[in-house]
Amino acid sequence: MKIVIIGGVAGGASCAARLRRLDESAAITIFERSGYISYANCGLPYYVGGVIENQDALTLQTPLSLKSRFNIDVKVKHEVIKIDKENKTVSVKNLVSNDVFTEKYDKLVIATGASPVYPDFYKPSERIFTLRTVEDTLKIKSFIDAKSPKTATVIGGGFIGLEMAENLMRQGIKVTVVQRDSHLLSTIDSDMASFIHPHFLRRGAALLFNKNVTDITEKNSVLYTHIEGCSPVLSDIVILATGVRPESKLAADAGLTVGLKGAITVNEHMEAYKDIYAVGDAVLVKHFVTEKDAVISLAGPANKQGRIAADNICGIKSKYSGTQGSSVIKLFDLTVASTGINEKACKSLNLDYEKIILSPLSHAGYYPGATAMTIKVLYDRSTKKILGAQIIGYDGVDKCIDIIATAMRAKMDITELQDLELAYAPPYSSAKSPVNMVGFIASNIEQGIVKQFYYEDIEKLQERDDVILLDTRTQFEYMRGHAKGFINIPLDSLRSNLHLLDKSKKIYVMCQSGVRSYIATRILMQSSFDAYNFTGGYRFYSGVLGDSVSKSAYPCGVEI
Amino acid sequence: MKIVIIGGVAGGASCAARLRRLDESAAITIFERSGYISYANCGLPYYVGGVIENQDALTLQTPLSLKSRFNIDVKVKHEVIKIDKENKTVSVKNLVSNDVFTEKYDKLVIATGASPVYPDFYKPSERIFTLRTVEDTLKIKSFIDAKSPKTATVIGGGFIGLEMAENLMRQGIKVTVVQRDSHLLSTIDSDMASFIHPHFLRRGAALLFNKNVTDITEKNSVLYTHIEGCSPVLSDIVILATGVRPESKLAADAGLTVGLKGAITVNEHMEAYKDIYAVGDAVLVKHFVTEKDAVISLAGPANKQGRIAADNICGIKSKYSGTQGSSVIKLFDLTVASTGINEKACKSLNLDYEKIILSPLSHAGYYPGATAMTIKVLYDRSTKKILGAQIIGYDGVDKCIDIIATAMRAKMDITELQDLELAYAPPYSSAKSPVNMVGFIASNIEQGIVKQFYYEDIEKLQERDDVILLDTRTQFEYMRGHAKGFINIPLDSLRSNLHLLDKSKKIYVMCQSGVRSYIATRILMQSSFDAYNFTGGYRFYSGVLGDSVSKSAYPCGVEI
Repeated sequence: MKIVIIGGVAGGASCAARLRRLDESAAITIFERSGYISYANCGLPYYVGGVIENQDALTLQTPLSLKSRFNIDVKVKHEVIKIDKENKTVSVKNLVSNDVFTEKYDKLVIATGASPVYPDFYKPSERIFTLRTVEDTLKIKSFIDAKSPKTATVIGGGFIGLEMAENLMRQGIKVTVVQRDSHLLSTIDSDMASFIHPHFLRRGAALLFNKNVTDITEKNSVLYTHIEGCSPVLSDIVILATGVRPESKLAADAGLTVGLKGAITVNEHMEAYKDIYAVGDAVLVKHFVTEKDAVISLAGPANKQGRIAADNICGIKSKYSGTQGSSVIKLFDLTVASTGINEKACKSLNLDYEKIILSPLSHAGYYPGATAMTIKVLYDRSTKKILGAQIIGYDGVDKCIDIIATAMRAKMDITELQDLELAYAPPYSSAKSPVNMVGFIASNIEQGIVKQFYYEDIEKLQERDDVILLDTRTQFEYMRGHAKGFINIPLDSLRSNLHLLDKSKKIYVMCQSGVRSYIATRILMQSSFDAYNFTGGYRFYSGVLGDSVSKSAYPCGVEI
Repeated sequence: MKIVIIGGVAGGASCAARLRRLDESAAITIFERSGYISYANCGLPYYVGGVIENQDALTLQTPLSLKSRFNIDVKVKHEVIKIDKENKTVSVKNLVSNDVFTEKYDKLVIATGASPVYPDFYKPSERIFTLRTVEDTLKIKSFIDAKSPKTATVIGGGFIGLEMAENLMRQGIKVTVVQRDSHLLSTIDSDMASFIHPHFLRRGAALLFNKNVTDITEKNSVLYTHIEGCSPVLSDIVILATGVRPESKLAADAGLTVGLKGAITVNEHMEAYKDIYAVGDAVLVKHFVTEKDAVISLAGPANKQGRIAADNICGIKSKYSGTQGSSVIKLFDLTVASTGINEKACKSLNLDYEKIILSPLSHAGYYPGATAMTIKVLYDRSTKKILGAQIIGYDGVDKCIDIIATAMRAKMDITELQDLELAYAPPYSSAKSPVNMVGFIASNIEQGIVKQFYYEDIEKLQERDDVILLDTRTQFEYMRGHAKGFINIPLDSLRSNLHLLDKSKKIYVMCQSGVRSYIATRILMQSSFDAYNFTGGYRFYSGVLGDSVSKSAYPCGVEI
């Protein structure tokens, strides 16, 4: 059996290695357009920042190591330029010699990945970079080493954009991030992103939101990033990080079906056509939560898909069960993680969802080093299934998101999170872990024990005089800052002051994290008040509000 | 409704707070024998070690705070000495005044916890301590501060014993741990414990295994811990940490049913008798994995049970779904975690189980700071359900155990672990996470792609001449150390050396971690060899063997 694999990074390399383990006699050839295979895609920004010091660390395998260990023929700098699916051949161009030759296959695996999106105005410049391959990385690194740029504009505030921003800042470069969306990291919601922005601002980055870049021009070695309705941003280099799109032209030209964003359509066995498989960033997946078509570029799914394609080629009927979009990113000392869909997506899908926001400690408060994290979880009101979660904090964030991701994969109801028995000792968690707390809150909501209100309700509530807005924190906390219109009755004196409150008015209760206001809400509900608990607490409210205030003060254009 | 709660720590305090949130009008009284309520049981050793500096941090609530926040009457230094379940009263002794009075209840909650097991020979001494309450902790701390003991003998190598050993060592005290079992931490298996012992030895602790303490005598302020068949261990203080037993005498005397270890029998609503509930360390639970009776002292389950009892008292039919024994302990810079049952338990239950041992990195190897962890997972061969997992390492251990604990709770098959979509970025995990790897390996075993052999097979294999023992590491690795009788053919030259191997002989393959030997096994199997892969690799083999060698060299008694 002759197997040809187009692309030798995550999905392609995984597929090749699994193929060999399953079939010692197959002839396996990988054609890779770049000069490197099986490289550490997700590590590239850290090489630029000097966190990963050794260039060799970026390549997990070499053509030679794949040959000697797996007896796989790897041809780097070879681009497949045509697939003939009826005659089962590919045309391959040797990018060094420019020779073109034809190769037969019995089974073909397309693992072409995705490529950076270039804006229409893009004109090549030695000062404008994208980051996708090892070559891209080396180019940026050597430019920095040679020319010592002082300023950079990063266009795009997604994973790559922000990791690049952090790593450029680590090199002492002043960074401006220009983001089309209203906040950094579109995978998470705008309210949650409020807790990221200060970390960039505090370190001297400039952030521009809701901004479209219209052109980049160059004059005397200075790049001018032109922004709609603003003065241009000047910088020594520009990083284009406006996303990627599936590399599917080859597949589409061959007559394979492509869908959303041009991604290659495959069945659950990763088959695109008879004897043709496709895996990784180039393919259309079923979203695990929405069950709709999705294009999601992640290394984990790509690797798994490569393995599944190999299984099926070798007669094992493995299935891919969809992508849920679990991701995590380190931003300075902060960790931001999410899984499933966010609230924006819930809204656009018209889902009947409920949301829970809480700020538990990473571990028992009495053990040194505990820090608060912000958790937002969305679930379907009718099915009780978890739709998605977003967590931001310092410690334990990756753990909590993985627990929730696992519960989602197992299709647990959100209320079942309260039954999870997670490992507890003071340095690691709390006896009631943050994830248990999500389950407790959801269970209270579902049983009618608590009713919630939300950040977006507050402005309207502040205008009404037929409601009571109540802050149940201590007088000291209240004095240090509170939401407009909220009166202060500390929780511990609520019972003795109930007579001061008008039972004919609905009462909306806030505290710092949502725990004391929940207790207050219970006291009130049982004294015949119609009471609502603010999910997230003042900590969340002030974080989101503060971000929106600071955003409105941002300059339209920054000259640095 | 009048509710009386006996015991005000984890289960009792949780129950009381939940009761109040559910029922504002109930009269709730907690009787607590000690002087403190709702204290940080799991933090006590860290106060002795000075990690937790402030004594106030140990008590999460005070009688006053529970009164003002929850309107709960807390009577500390009040011991309930009798339950009259027919007349629904308790007799309570005020331990300060010695007055005894009778209190009526509508609902009673028994949260008496567990108490340290004292050996028969035990005679009180100001130098012999147990650690269960805040009072115990303060006693140890003030003795250390006043008398500066130089040496300590810790009897018992479980959670409390080891946390105390570490914290005493932190105070500069030389520690000997005397353990009845063959290894520290009986919750984990002997092979896994091999990876803990060096961490104590390296820091100067002495460890004695398989030793029964027969007496402790005192002469000139020196304690002599007498050990069967050994010379006594001398020390300035002794910590008795030989486990706890349910505090159920009160319940048993009242005619409530008790079972295993005297633990109080309850139904899934935590009901022990009409209008009597019992929660926490005092109760008999159903083991989530074995579905058999079990007594498991853990803070998480105690808190959940307290909540469930409160729900049921207030008409919400919550159920407790069993305890799976998830635990984690910090030992110096090491983290040791487990969930479910261990291999010893699998054997004693005659289960048809398979085991997987692997040593993945905590995160992508190319990103700085990755460390190896040792994972052992057990699953049922017929049902494919996960029976238990044990993990030892530095980073990511608590995360991986919690993911597996969640999968177990969701009753996932072990092979489904390969489908988990966990959050990946280089600082946090690998594209194929350690837990995914467990799923891949299990799936390979179940599909007949790989056959395993185990540490306990090696000695017999080494005596046979009809088998080939093959080490597929590099020559350099092999030269640095290898298992007796294993010949070396590095993986990358295996294909070209197959002709050297006798196909009539079974072939047993080892490498460093189990990955290269797996690939070798696949090459061999497809070339008509009957090949077996060593689960755990030489890293595991040498760790377990080294521990057994070093144990045999331990002195029988240590005089320090």
